[in-house]
Amino acid sequence: MLLSRLPNQLRRICLTNWSLTNHYRRLSLVKPKFIPTNSRIRRPRGAINKSQMTSATFDRETLESVLKRRFFYAPAFDLYGGVSGLYDYGPPGCALQAHVVDVWRKHFILEEDMLEVDCTMLTPYEVLKTSGHVDKFADWMCRDPATGEIFRVDHLVEEVLESRLKGDKDARGQASAFVNPEDKKRKKKVKEIKAIQLDDAVVEEYESVLAQIDGYSGPQLGELMKKYAIVNPATGGPLSEPLEFNLMFETAIGPSGQLKGYLRPETAQGQFLNFNKLLDSNNSKMPFASASIGKSFRNEISPRSGLLRVREFLMAEIEHFVDPTDKSHVRFAEVADIKLSLLNKNTQQAGRTDIDVITIGEAVKTGVVDNETLGYFLARIYLFLTRIGIDPSKLRFRQHMANEMAHYAADCWDAELKTSYGWIECVGCADRSAYDLTVHSNKTGEKLVVRQALSEPIVTEGYEVELDKKKFGPKFKKDGKAIEQYLLSRSQDELEKLSEELSANLKISVDVENITAPVEISSDLIAIEKKTKQEFIREFTPNVIEPSFGIGRILYSLMEHSFYLRPGSESRAVLSFPPLVAPTKVLLVPLSNDVKFDPVIRKVSVLLRRAGISSKVDDSSATIGRRYARNDELGTPFGITVDFQTLEDGTITLRERDSTKQVRGVINDVVAAVQAMVSLDAVPWETGTASLEVFDSVAE
Amino acid sequence: MLLSRLPNQLRRICLTNWSLTNHYRRLSLVKPKFIPTNSRIRRPRGAINKSQMTSATFDRETLESVLKRRFFYAPAFDLYGGVSGLYDYGPPGCALQAHVVDVWRKHFILEEDMLEVDCTMLTPYEVLKTSGHVDKFADWMCRDPATGEIFRVDHLVEEVLESRLKGDKDARGQASAFVNPEDKKRKKKVKEIKAIQLDDAVVEEYESVLAQIDGYSGPQLGELMKKYAIVNPATGGPLSEPLEFNLMFETAIGPSGQLKGYLRPETAQGQFLNFNKLLDSNNSKMPFASASIGKSFRNEISPRSGLLRVREFLMAEIEHFVDPTDKSHVRFAEVADIKLSLLNKNTQQAGRTDIDVITIGEAVKTGVVDNETLGYFLARIYLFLTRIGIDPSKLRFRQHMANEMAHYAADCWDAELKTSYGWIECVGCADRSAYDLTVHSNKTGEKLVVRQALSEPIVTEGYEVELDKKKFGPKFKKDGKAIEQYLLSRSQDELEKLSEELSANLKISVDVENITAPVEISSDLIAIEKKTKQEFIREFTPNVIEPSFGIGRILYSLMEHSFYLRPGSESRAVLSFPPLVAPTKVLLVPLSNDVKFDPVIRKVSVLLRRAGISSKVDDSSATIGRRYARNDELGTPFGITVDFQTLEDGTITLRERDSTKQVRGVINDVVAAVQAMVSLDAVPWETGTASLEVFDSVAE
Repeated sequence: MLLSRLPNQLRRICLTNWSLTNHYRRLSLVKPKFIPTNSRIRRPRGAINKSQMTSATFDRETLESVLKRRFFYAPAFDLYGGVSGLYDYGPPGCALQAHVVDVWRKHFILEEDMLEVDCTMLTPYEVLKTSGHVDKFADWMCRDPATGEIFRVDHLVEEVLESRLKGDKDARGQASAFVNPEDKKRKKKVKEIKAIQLDDAVVEEYESVLAQIDGYSGPQLGELMKKYAIVNPATGGPLSEPLEFNLMFETAIGPSGQLKGYLRPETAQGQFLNFNKLLDSNNSKMPFASASIGKSFRNEISPRSGLLRVREFLMAEIEHFVDPTDKSHVRFAEVADIKLSLLNKNTQQAGRTDIDVITIGEAVKTGVVDNETLGYFLARIYLFLTRIGIDPSKLRFRQHMANEMAHYAADCWDAELKTSYGWIECVGCADRSAYDLTVHSNKTGEKLVVRQALSEPIVTEGYEVELDKKKFGPKFKKDGKAIEQYLLSRSQDELEKLSEELSANLKISVDVENITAPVEISSDLIAIEKKTKQEFIREFTPNVIEPSFGIGRILYSLMEHSFYLRPGSESRAVLSFPPLVAPTKVLLVPLSNDVKFDPVIRKVSVLLRRAGISSKVDDSSATIGRRYARNDELGTPFGITVDFQTLEDGTITLRERDSTKQVRGVINDVVAAVQAMVSLDAVPWETGTASLEVFDSVAE
Repeated sequence: MLLSRLPNQLRRICLTNWSLTNHYRRLSLVKPKFIPTNSRIRRPRGAINKSQMTSATFDRETLESVLKRRFFYAPAFDLYGGVSGLYDYGPPGCALQAHVVDVWRKHFILEEDMLEVDCTMLTPYEVLKTSGHVDKFADWMCRDPATGEIFRVDHLVEEVLESRLKGDKDARGQASAFVNPEDKKRKKKVKEIKAIQLDDAVVEEYESVLAQIDGYSGPQLGELMKKYAIVNPATGGPLSEPLEFNLMFETAIGPSGQLKGYLRPETAQGQFLNFNKLLDSNNSKMPFASASIGKSFRNEISPRSGLLRVREFLMAEIEHFVDPTDKSHVRFAEVADIKLSLLNKNTQQAGRTDIDVITIGEAVKTGVVDNETLGYFLARIYLFLTRIGIDPSKLRFRQHMANEMAHYAADCWDAELKTSYGWIECVGCADRSAYDLTVHSNKTGEKLVVRQALSEPIVTEGYEVELDKKKFGPKFKKDGKAIEQYLLSRSQDELEKLSEELSANLKISVDVENITAPVEISSDLIAIEKKTKQEFIREFTPNVIEPSFGIGRILYSLMEHSFYLRPGSESRAVLSFPPLVAPTKVLLVPLSNDVKFDPVIRKVSVLLRRAGISSKVDDSSATIGRRYARNDELGTPFGITVDFQTLEDGTITLRERDSTKQVRGVINDVVAAVQAMVSLDAVPWETGTASLEVFDSVAE
């Protein structure tokens, strides 16, 4: 099934292939489509349905202005004009990231006893040569020799053909049906669209090319450029042939400049290289998983889409090592009943995008998902993402089709999150078979295997060749090695025949490559006999199941999923992060900046800090409502107000961000309620504040 | 005061200058000395005095074999032969690091409301050019043109002269007094030492050179090489002149190869560049601090000393922005009574290394430490280091001497930790004045300042020049700009005279550079009058106080400080990390691998996990004693044993690693006790287990 046959709805954003899930084939950022997901999926939340709040009103520019104003993130080095694809996280973004990483660590590493490692980013050439990155981790670019401009070829072809199609529509007097939200912001190559009508056949051809734009090789893209006379849109000047551009940042390690190195494009390789030490750390028990959280680097040709395609990014990767003959998972039963939205490969190959909402137990049983371990991780990924606040109605698992996967991969699913850029691949979950351990082992000659004592030995029977080396060497001299090689590489059938020949003639005659005359070997030099062997140890290269998380993409999607404008008060934006991951948990507001409130604020502040809960004091002169509004933009879930009544009876008010509900109680009770609501096993507002008194807000 | 005048005891290890504390002057790894610290400092711990345990028996090789066996860390890429200066952290090292970072984040960021940022490691050329790193962040190396070998010049000169001095001693029949523990391990340039006697004058000269080896410039090192005929020790071949080698890893950003970039050598620059956004995030309030935790990179010429000098390392840096006219700290009183071991610059300049143990309050009052904010951070650093388990008797604060500091720095102290490599600089704490913000502001033209509304306006009086631009320009044409510049840059005294001249003559005559004739300006073109000005806003560039932590060095020092061999059983090594940072908190051991124990083990395991406490099960067939011994090497502070009595009455045994004391109680009580002992405000064993029954161990 070719991509060209796929309907347009299926085209989606696959911004990178985390960890080479589909082995170096990089799909490009294509025109986002807003595919409605299956409405049967319901959010497990109570009062607030963010989807409803946002779907009608969501506007990326409003969100972005909030994120910028509150310094969630910003272009790095903007004082110096910025560097595209590099972003700094400011305090709320950094705190959000730290909390998400902390939950990740607890949800996966601590929960599953994984072995976390922290490997270097600097990686020598040889390692990435072996892994395949040096040769294949590349995109296609072309250069304008006159201006020096560089274009990513697939993007350029796409943009030029799209602009011609738009021009055609204009000429025919049809309005463009679809306005790409990217168009407003992104630095486009094609600045103006000329209204020129095209032949119907040409329109059809362009549409067909666009449908399969992700599937072309570099030379094919070069042919398209020639065929459709694609030149530099700005100058009309000719462009070079497509060149492969490796996406790794190169550097030299040490003072000689001789040791070439790269910044790692993924954290996985360090985990593979430490396999033997990790197995040893695990007392040689299988299965087990390692995990790593750290930055990786990709030198994108033309980064865009904000945090979604960057040159330096945080990843969290798990390498779960498993017996290839037994991919069951001991805890599978715990997740078997979880329902997931699956977009399987058969559906896609039939040209459809229907979601199946089925339990992962069913999916594994029916073979939709290849094995229990892979299924277990899909469910665990679902639990993680929804736990940190991802909207489950904007989360689907898309299976890779055969032509997307590497030949060695058994199965691969991406957790895709729906954003205003379309469906974004945020987590990859692939069964990589024994590929990585095998290539490193072959290259270095070090075994990367598991040895398992067998309860019953495996008995095998077969012919074996034995040579009398003392006589054999002197007799055949320089040909000895080749003859030995020849004999040792014979099949059992051949050995059986040779054995019979030897018994019959007391010698054998063989034709060895590169030795002209037939070689005669007499029975005093060789024995070929049937033998029985017992093996007590089974040695195997484990398979790897790899869940790989792009933290920056998850954070950005989370910001979109959490964003809404307060109904009835649309100028007030809210980021409704779950308390567990919210950058700051509590805003402390004294009614006014009267110094009388200071001791109480300090007391509450110390109590919260001692409970490990981050808080911020806002004692500015703004109204309480305005101060809360500021913190709604920061996603602070709780507000504590200290007022004159506090000075009398020691009670304080606690406010919930989304419902703006308020309760009142003494300081210790309120702090305890907050603690219960921000912890890993957070209780909801109703439970957490059950013992506190409902309080009617005065001003909001 | 020159370094050459300093006694030998003072020479110490300054492995890098975190954050350019002393502005690019890099001191080298010199021969470590074991300077006894002041014995008045006592550990605040109870039962176990690790110093006593380790001081007599400490052997780095034994520690290293434990760290390797338990995979705390290992050379990166060792499957491929390794790359010097790059290390991977295995599971226990990684967990230890994560816990130390977590404590750091709580101790500094959460406690002080710091603004954490996460900036990119990739940094464009311009930024590091401005900061001074491109020009000055370098070491000196020389090359052997015949073999291609590269030497770090100061190390080479040092090693050759030291070997000649040893040879002299051998020739004189004197035993070398000092065996360098590094010698056994490090790859030495000088392989064999020839017993050749030197003139007494030469010996004296060599010793003088060695005493000041850290102070030579590259050309001076080159002269020493010529003077003492220093060649390639292995081949006797001549070496090149010393060349400056920049220690930053270089790469190209983007596909053109034109945008040169580096991997950051420190996290500080990203914080400075975001100053305006951070100030805004802090509602423009001063003082405030930003903080960053992340990897930095230095391309060392010849890395050595394990984790102490590496090419990729984790840093945690704070930039505390403060009003230059007011460096008091609002929380100083909280730490004023903390006693620190200070090695001040006057003591060092007098050639001594005596430690003063004084309160930080006293140190600031007497001017030993420059200001309250700096003093506050020294005390907070002390509290952090001792909290994670650093032995306070092996911790001193050494002040930089005038010749170590950059001209702009007000004061600088290093927290040095004593290890088998000598005193190691692990935290730098410098008052960097307004240097960084000023250079970036000058370069980019963007103001990086604080604007403060003044409660009373500042009134100033002075002469001001006013030009009638409409007439002035046409009259002086191309000279106009130079004349204007000249007039605007006059001092008040000069303006007073010119004002008088103008009043008297209705014109002035001035000599302007590059204009040959005196310039006459008549009173219709110019007015020079005394004016009174009121300023309502004070604008200033804040000063920066920068505590900068090398996490890897702290971890290594912590491992040394925590290591001991169990008295009476010296084959059993223990890493006595405090529970707060120990990689795994609890070892779960069923008495045997009888399946009867499984449900209890699972139950305890789940309870611990829910409480956020990491545990490992060891159900191997080894004896309980052996299983505990294995986990003593991993630094696991607590062990829980499940035995047959557990199946009867639900009680389990809890064991403490260092004392091997045991208590017994029901599962929930034991888990609660563990939770109290591993938290941030951990209670000691006696308090934590007060409600549990003391249990006499059967086997250890």
